[in-house]
Amino acid sequence: MNEQQTRQLRVALAQVDTRVGDLDGNAGLVRDWTARAARYGAHLVVFPEMTLTGYPAEDLVLRESFARASEQRLVDLAADLAADGLGETAVVVGYLAHTQGSGPAPVDTAPTDVDDRPGDANPRRGAPRNAAALLFGGQVVARYNKRPLPNYGVFDEARYFVPGTDLPVVRLHGVDVALTICEDLWVEGGPCGVAGQAGVDLVVSPNASPYERAKDDLRLPLVRRRAAEARAPIVYCNQVGGQDELVFDGDSLVVAAGGELLARAPQFVQHLLTVDLAVDPAAVPERRDGRIGPMTVTRHLLSDSPVPAYDARPGSIAEPLSDCEEVWRALVLGLKDFIDKNGMPSVVLGMSGGIDSALVAALAVDALGADRVYGVGLPSKYSSEHSLSDAEDSAKRLGMHYSVVPIAPIVDAFHDAVELTGVAAENLQARVRGTLLMGLSNQHGHLLLATSNKSEVAVGYSTLYGDAAGGFAPIKDVPKTLVWALSRWRNEYARSRGETEPIPQNSIDKPPSAELAPGQQDSDSLPSYEELDAVVADYVDRDLGLAELLERGHDPEVVARVLRLVDAAEFKRRQSAPGTKISLKAFGRDRRLPITNRWRESLPSVREGAAAS
Amino acid sequence: MNEQQTRQLRVALAQVDTRVGDLDGNAGLVRDWTARAARYGAHLVVFPEMTLTGYPAEDLVLRESFARASEQRLVDLAADLAADGLGETAVVVGYLAHTQGSGPAPVDTAPTDVDDRPGDANPRRGAPRNAAALLFGGQVVARYNKRPLPNYGVFDEARYFVPGTDLPVVRLHGVDVALTICEDLWVEGGPCGVAGQAGVDLVVSPNASPYERAKDDLRLPLVRRRAAEARAPIVYCNQVGGQDELVFDGDSLVVAAGGELLARAPQFVQHLLTVDLAVDPAAVPERRDGRIGPMTVTRHLLSDSPVPAYDARPGSIAEPLSDCEEVWRALVLGLKDFIDKNGMPSVVLGMSGGIDSALVAALAVDALGADRVYGVGLPSKYSSEHSLSDAEDSAKRLGMHYSVVPIAPIVDAFHDAVELTGVAAENLQARVRGTLLMGLSNQHGHLLLATSNKSEVAVGYSTLYGDAAGGFAPIKDVPKTLVWALSRWRNEYARSRGETEPIPQNSIDKPPSAELAPGQQDSDSLPSYEELDAVVADYVDRDLGLAELLERGHDPEVVARVLRLVDAAEFKRRQSAPGTKISLKAFGRDRRLPITNRWRESLPSVREGAAAS
Repeated sequence: MNEQQTRQLRVALAQVDTRVGDLDGNAGLVRDWTARAARYGAHLVVFPEMTLTGYPAEDLVLRESFARASEQRLVDLAADLAADGLGETAVVVGYLAHTQGSGPAPVDTAPTDVDDRPGDANPRRGAPRNAAALLFGGQVVARYNKRPLPNYGVFDEARYFVPGTDLPVVRLHGVDVALTICEDLWVEGGPCGVAGQAGVDLVVSPNASPYERAKDDLRLPLVRRRAAEARAPIVYCNQVGGQDELVFDGDSLVVAAGGELLARAPQFVQHLLTVDLAVDPAAVPERRDGRIGPMTVTRHLLSDSPVPAYDARPGSIAEPLSDCEEVWRALVLGLKDFIDKNGMPSVVLGMSGGIDSALVAALAVDALGADRVYGVGLPSKYSSEHSLSDAEDSAKRLGMHYSVVPIAPIVDAFHDAVELTGVAAENLQARVRGTLLMGLSNQHGHLLLATSNKSEVAVGYSTLYGDAAGGFAPIKDVPKTLVWALSRWRNEYARSRGETEPIPQNSIDKPPSAELAPGQQDSDSLPSYEELDAVVADYVDRDLGLAELLERGHDPEVVARVLRLVDAAEFKRRQSAPGTKISLKAFGRDRRLPITNRWRESLPSVREGAAAS
Repeated sequence: MNEQQTRQLRVALAQVDTRVGDLDGNAGLVRDWTARAARYGAHLVVFPEMTLTGYPAEDLVLRESFARASEQRLVDLAADLAADGLGETAVVVGYLAHTQGSGPAPVDTAPTDVDDRPGDANPRRGAPRNAAALLFGGQVVARYNKRPLPNYGVFDEARYFVPGTDLPVVRLHGVDVALTICEDLWVEGGPCGVAGQAGVDLVVSPNASPYERAKDDLRLPLVRRRAAEARAPIVYCNQVGGQDELVFDGDSLVVAAGGELLARAPQFVQHLLTVDLAVDPAAVPERRDGRIGPMTVTRHLLSDSPVPAYDARPGSIAEPLSDCEEVWRALVLGLKDFIDKNGMPSVVLGMSGGIDSALVAALAVDALGADRVYGVGLPSKYSSEHSLSDAEDSAKRLGMHYSVVPIAPIVDAFHDAVELTGVAAENLQARVRGTLLMGLSNQHGHLLLATSNKSEVAVGYSTLYGDAAGGFAPIKDVPKTLVWALSRWRNEYARSRGETEPIPQNSIDKPPSAELAPGQQDSDSLPSYEELDAVVADYVDRDLGLAELLERGHDPEVVARVLRLVDAAEFKRRQSAPGTKISLKAFGRDRRLPITNRWRESLPSVREGAAAS
């Protein structure tokens, strides 16, 4: 064998949709997709972060029995793969590692950082780690424990994991492969930098990177920076699928050491992406191991001989989606996975003829098929003629189930029992609808979808236990202006395919109204949605204070009003259903404000008024 | 002056009830309590952790405008105290520090630990710190940034703060005072150990340590260990009061270097605790500064001359409360502060004649006074005779408002509109009650109290938007067996004071029933509450897995049933109202489990059954 011969490696990225807590099911996914990859001739298959447990497993991580089961499942999986005849395919799989108790111990047993992790008070037993292992020949060959632990936004990894200290490098068919995980990519001078100093031919990075609008635009430059630091190609395999508030978009990619994009998977679908890599040993820097920076590099020799030369194929690069299509697919997948992974047969929702319920119905039909979607028109005495006809039109266009239950007699029965006026009477109607829909949910096993959008959730323009009722809120993170844009896009998409437009034009065009009082319109109590959404984006998503908001040119009166409304609605949001995150900052785990909170920034004039009263 | 003269210092611990976000109000508290302490002759006054911002301020910390305002308020407070004629009293006050932007920069500007805190992805701007400052003579003399950041249970401090690296020691009247904060006490070899190596005469520790049952039993031994490590007395000042899910119990204390308890404040009340300390300079170790372990010790000289000798008084030591009284006071204070700090004039609750609503009513009357509490009896056709009479008896004993609204006509109106049977019909009744109560809440400005207890919340034995509806759930973390114990204790307490027993004996004695179907009793669908509560304590509070639960002797069938119910109820809990944490692990921020979660531990027989189906 010529030592200077170019070494080839076919790598497959298995962009799969795992389930949190489903160790057996997820191990089954690894076996199925490894078999597929092997049929394509892959030598190495990379799965997403925490493949076996799903991500994020949240406080399940703290349950010792779960962590031990994950450890055991990893060892069993290595044996299962060999029994499947896949022992010669190297597989990188994510799992939850646990160093204490009677279960098998991972390689890296460095002690907890005592300084930052008080033992007395910390209920975490043992030392859970966010880990990845390379399986080969029926064995667990090498293990990596994630080092930088994200603890911002939706991430709480410092709550769960002990950071790793070792960087394993496995020589596979003469190619030196370094194992890293996810967040490592976001850190300058982190594990990728250590790999660059150690000298490797390839970095693999299992990921669980949740979708946000336009995040795909960030990923490629980021991976390029790390590839330059690692002086090696990077294989970035992200998971796909919904998990409660999060949806993962896949978008797995491979970048050459020089920054060239070699392959990229489509978003929002399971996908096997293969790429042929070639390493010229002459071009590779000297190998080092042992202590490098804050980490210890360990090398594992699996096989020195290159694979027989073969004809490399160019990698496929998926076309990027438009902004609206990307969001649409995120919402559809987030909804579908919430319903299916929780074993719900069907969904029900109230149809008002307005744009929010029309959009949610269209999303539900795209996600689940028309036969699993039940719409109910719930007219009151304040409902306009077009409310009912638009709702019916919407259901017909979508081919979903539809029925009508007038609420007036029930509302009257409440009014006979207690005196309710003004806002209390408005909320009553919404709660009668919520109670009817929850009744149908309980009776027929449907999950109730709430139709609140982000603009409403922000300012509390919804009724707790009324229109906010439901097990999932598909457009909770979609501002009203985007609700309209998505509706127009979806209709245009249908037109371009010669299909029926799913959303009634009238629902898009008419002025929004809650129809809880005669002639009521949203604009009676709220600023225009253009203004509202702009302020919410800056105040909620970007956390700007009053002075910064004014500097950005927002109208002072609108700002004062919106801030007051957003701050006062925290108690409602705390009890709201989860919904798919698509923005920089979604309501939910992403934004954790106290209910009891006296901090109010107000305009000088408003402040003086308050002091005088 | 004799250098070897014993130096005295009178220290006051201001155990105050701050408000989150109320910078001006909290600064006002500091001024008032410092004036009080000065009248008692205190030389040094110590306030709780993050005094100015309140604790926990959660994501408010990320708002730059808030952090800057906190910095500015600190500087202004130092000047205000001097203007109040209190410039010669040293004051240790907690605040939120912020090193970037145009605001004043704290002394310690050590860079962020880049390795653990990815800059690209982390939305945290600047470098917020959980800080304490010593104010004297109108100036901010020294600042300490908390180093060990708790990030488990209810704590998310790694999300918010950058850890400190400097330990300031201020010489005040010849006494060397080291500043630390809260979690420092829980860490072996942390800042207290550094103080011990540096040589100090006193360690002050502002705290925000939330109440848990019997936590006071942990604190004293803990503070003793740190005093031994610091080789100096420790002044531990904890805050008091409710903040959303948390209640802080105070229990401030002072321990001598040798471990002797010198003074201890009562729990659950604002309190000024004073203690006279005497330092024999001959007994003090050599002084060091500069780098010690992971920290840098800086010394600040305020005054070398001792205060004129005075007659020391012994410190007062509060008697510990009984378990039931401690819990009762925690629940009363948690409820009172939630209502008052959110500016709610009154509360309303449904009274069923059962023990849960009777207990919540008694708590509400103790917290707010009878005139702010409104009970409503909501009988259905399944309500027994005693339901209504016991509810009325309860309200009479408490002297609260009470009215009756029969729900049958409204329930009938729903049944006329849609067909609901079985559980759907049961839930309907609960939701009609919830809707009526929310209507009264909206109409009259009452906050609705939910009456669910921890046993019900654990197994989902409640109706979403029905009996679970409400803005606050006072006994959410109280298991049913403790509900009974607390009720008996409260009646006995009343008897011992010659007062009317507030809780009807019949409500305590009768078998629990939801009364949503004819003759229904809780025992039809749940194990005994003794068994249920024991399994919940081990599964929820202690996070034990199946094997451990069986090892602890729980009945296998009960365990299987309870685990299934607890796991399936996650979606309900996610939308439940906040309630005061009293246990090791409360539902809420303390326990973060995914809704979508396939992890189920089942008995071998059950597992086989599932596999066969």
